[in-house]
Amino acid sequence: MSTFYNRIAGESVERLAALSDGIFAVAMTLLVLDLHGPAKEAIGSEQDLYRALVALWPQLLTYMKSFLTLAIFWNGQQAQLNRFARTNRHLTWIQMLFLCAVSIMPFSTRLLAEFIGYRIALICYWANLLFLGAVLYIAWRYARRTGLITQDTSHEIACAIERRIVFGQVLYATGACLCIWNTYWSIAFIVVTQINFAIAPRIPWLSRF
Amino acid sequence: MSTFYNRIAGESVERLAALSDGIFAVAMTLLVLDLHGPAKEAIGSEQDLYRALVALWPQLLTYMKSFLTLAIFWNGQQAQLNRFARTNRHLTWIQMLFLCAVSIMPFSTRLLAEFIGYRIALICYWANLLFLGAVLYIAWRYARRTGLITQDTSHEIACAIERRIVFGQVLYATGACLCIWNTYWSIAFIVVTQINFAIAPRIPWLSRF
Amino acid sequence: MSTFYNRIAGESVERLAALSDGIFAVAMTLLVLDLHGPAKEAIGSEQDLYRALVALWPQLLTYMKSFLTLAIFWNGQQAQLNRFARTNRHLTWIQMLFLCAVSIMPFSTRLLAEFIGYRIALICYWANLLFLGAVLYIAWRYARRTGLITQDTSHEIACAIERRIVFGQVLYATGACLCIWNTYWSIAFIVVTQINFAIAPRIPWLSRF
Amino acid sequence: MSTFYNRIAGESVERLAALSDGIFAVAMTLLVLDLHGPAKEAIGSEQDLYRALVALWPQLLTYMKSFLTLAIFWNGQQAQLNRFARTNRHLTWIQMLFLCAVSIMPFSTRLLAEFIGYRIALICYWANLLFLGAVLYIAWRYARRTGLITQDTSHEIACAIERRIVFGQVLYATGACLCIWNTYWSIAFIVVTQINFAIAPRIPWLSRF
Repeated sequence: MSTFYNRIAGESVERLAALSDGIFAVAMTLLVLDLHGPAKEAIGSEQDLYRALVALWPQLLTYMKSFLTLAIFWNGQQAQLNRFARTNRHLTWIQMLFLCAVSIMPFSTRLLAEFIGYRIALICYWANLLFLGAVLYIAWRYARRTGLITQDTSHEIACAIERRIVFGQVLYATGACLCIWNTYWSIAFIVVTQINFAIAPRIPWLSRF
Repeated sequence: MSTFYNRIAGESVERLAALSDGIFAVAMTLLVLDLHGPAKEAIGSEQDLYRALVALWPQLLTYMKSFLTLAIFWNGQQAQLNRFARTNRHLTWIQMLFLCAVSIMPFSTRLLAEFIGYRIALICYWANLLFLGAVLYIAWRYARRTGLITQDTSHEIACAIERRIVFGQVLYATGACLCIWNTYWSIAFIVVTQINFAIAPRIPWLSRF
Repeated sequence: MSTFYNRIAGESVERLAALSDGIFAVAMTLLVLDLHGPAKEAIGSEQDLYRALVALWPQLLTYMKSFLTLAIFWNGQQAQLNRFARTNRHLTWIQMLFLCAVSIMPFSTRLLAEFIGYRIALICYWANLLFLGAVLYIAWRYARRTGLITQDTSHEIACAIERRIVFGQVLYATGACLCIWNTYWSIAFIVVTQINFAIAPRIPWLSRF
Repeated sequence: MSTFYNRIAGESVERLAALSDGIFAVAMTLLVLDLHGPAKEAIGSEQDLYRALVALWPQLLTYMKSFLTLAIFWNGQQAQLNRFARTNRHLTWIQMLFLCAVSIMPFSTRLLAEFIGYRIALICYWANLLFLGAVLYIAWRYARRTGLITQDTSHEIACAIERRIVFGQVLYATGACLCIWNTYWSIAFIVVTQINFAIAPRIPWLSRF
């Protein structure tokens, strides 16, 4: 029987990491193109400019929120890739699904920013978060099952990575459910969750996950 | 006789890989700029937004299709680069041709998405696929002939890589021919082919290539 | 007690450097999209084109200024990352803050270029410089305190890196204060400071920092 | 006397290469954003689309020309970076100048494409080529003089790299001079020069440089 292409394709973790870093970098900086300063004609005094910049504040916040979300998932993916001894074509394609969801994130965040009071916009945004988490989880389970992770990754570390994804998704889903009352509650809950992941305060209960 | 520039230029596989990853990453994320959410003024209720998002569905599918195509060729190029022991200026320039075709892919896909019923749009798209495949094939043949591939690349692996490119191109050409009847048949055939390459199901006949 | 996710996340300096290079590269090239040549219809002779290109000069200068600023901070971050033996999740997140400020730099520069006579635009621009410097300083202090820097980084080198950030920020703040009189004085002072950092002339007093 | 910042900054060739690859990758793919297919409303039949695509041909050629130019200078820079044992802050800043000129290349090419019959557009384009070449030359001379190149770079190789830059610039300048008669002659001459650099045919006289 001959050597099949599928057995030899997609073996380089380094290039997968390089492609991922590139896609994250572009996705993280693309949104700044949407940040347009006020039109020159509309501004006549320092006060006009001040007011125009204050009006730009929500857009800036959206930008930072999108950056924060992508940074969280960059860290999440990195925690995995660092522990892949090698990859195979299936794992590479699971990561491709992840990268596809990453590149759509700017669109979801922008949709939510523009239609901040609409439940459907929030559900779309949450669906993107859910998809990112689900694919990360599947990638890790697959890598563990097929022995693609490094030898020094203990059972405890492997479980910690899984637990973190599940814990994050439970919080995001809880946030999404709050939109039954109000989308602002949802967004606030999700943002607080994300800031917690970024800062990782030394709260015993929280840092156990 | 003196040392000529052409003999010492273009020797780094690492930098070629880095440039490729960068170009693929930008090409894969650029198209999301075309995905614009509905205008704020046109939306008055959750139902309006729902309908507007449903109307966006074809654009999202196009985006994913473009991502899928680029991911397939990224894998194809990676399978080669991993097996290049070194490169020379000619091989580097063949890869440049490949990268040029990669960077035009978003344009071809967008053209097809907008003129989905037109044969000429389909032919353009297929020509891009054909060009990508042809350049990959030429690059591999050239690298084999000039001994630039690594020692541990057996004859079987080398043949598997060639066979895969030819097999893919035969399927794409078959798909393109279907446009004599209808461009939708062509697109469906090509998408199924691509999804097959991504998922690589364990169908004995198919996975032999 | 179990292994916590936060202890194992964000450990790769290489991938942090790769993400940073990607974000800097995109931020440095994005602004060229704003550089539009004159409209074809408005140009009837060589003289028309000449005048249109001369009118484009300020935009080109803004572009170069933005490039210069980003290049300075790329060097500043690189001087640090080269001396990180490893990183941890906190240091990675401090660097994320830095990258977020990097990706907003094009926006600040463009704002200043369009509203060059307005103090608020200058303050925004300076706030961005201050934020970049402050985060770099915090990152370095944190890395020193937690022993994340390489063994061969002497106390003198560590202090030189800190001193440089503080010295730069003092100059930038001095420049910003000049806007009490006139924003053009501020900009001139900041640009001269930046060109000094780029060229690093052998002036004994200046090169001590 | 204390350790100065300038002596320890900008030492990593790897990160300089990574930033360069990122900037080249973005510059090479950005222009595809300008390639817009025909508007959907204007197209009623296959023939309409065919005519619209034929009308797009000059834009596509411009895109490829820009890609070709950037690919040539990417190879030129790579030939240098591969031979840098290390870098210092001055050499890093010379490379920054080079990267700044790289990121402006898309603008110059677009200007020339739109005003193809105007001498000033051609002079701008040529000035960009000249600047790229001059900075590359200065970088190489500086690296040789300060002993930053690797030990295995023989005198012959070092001279071949210099000779190539000078030879290229002489050809580009010759091409630019042809615009006294006609800009089309200039462009044709420069394109033929570039294609010669890409293909490197085995013409004894030409390949000596």
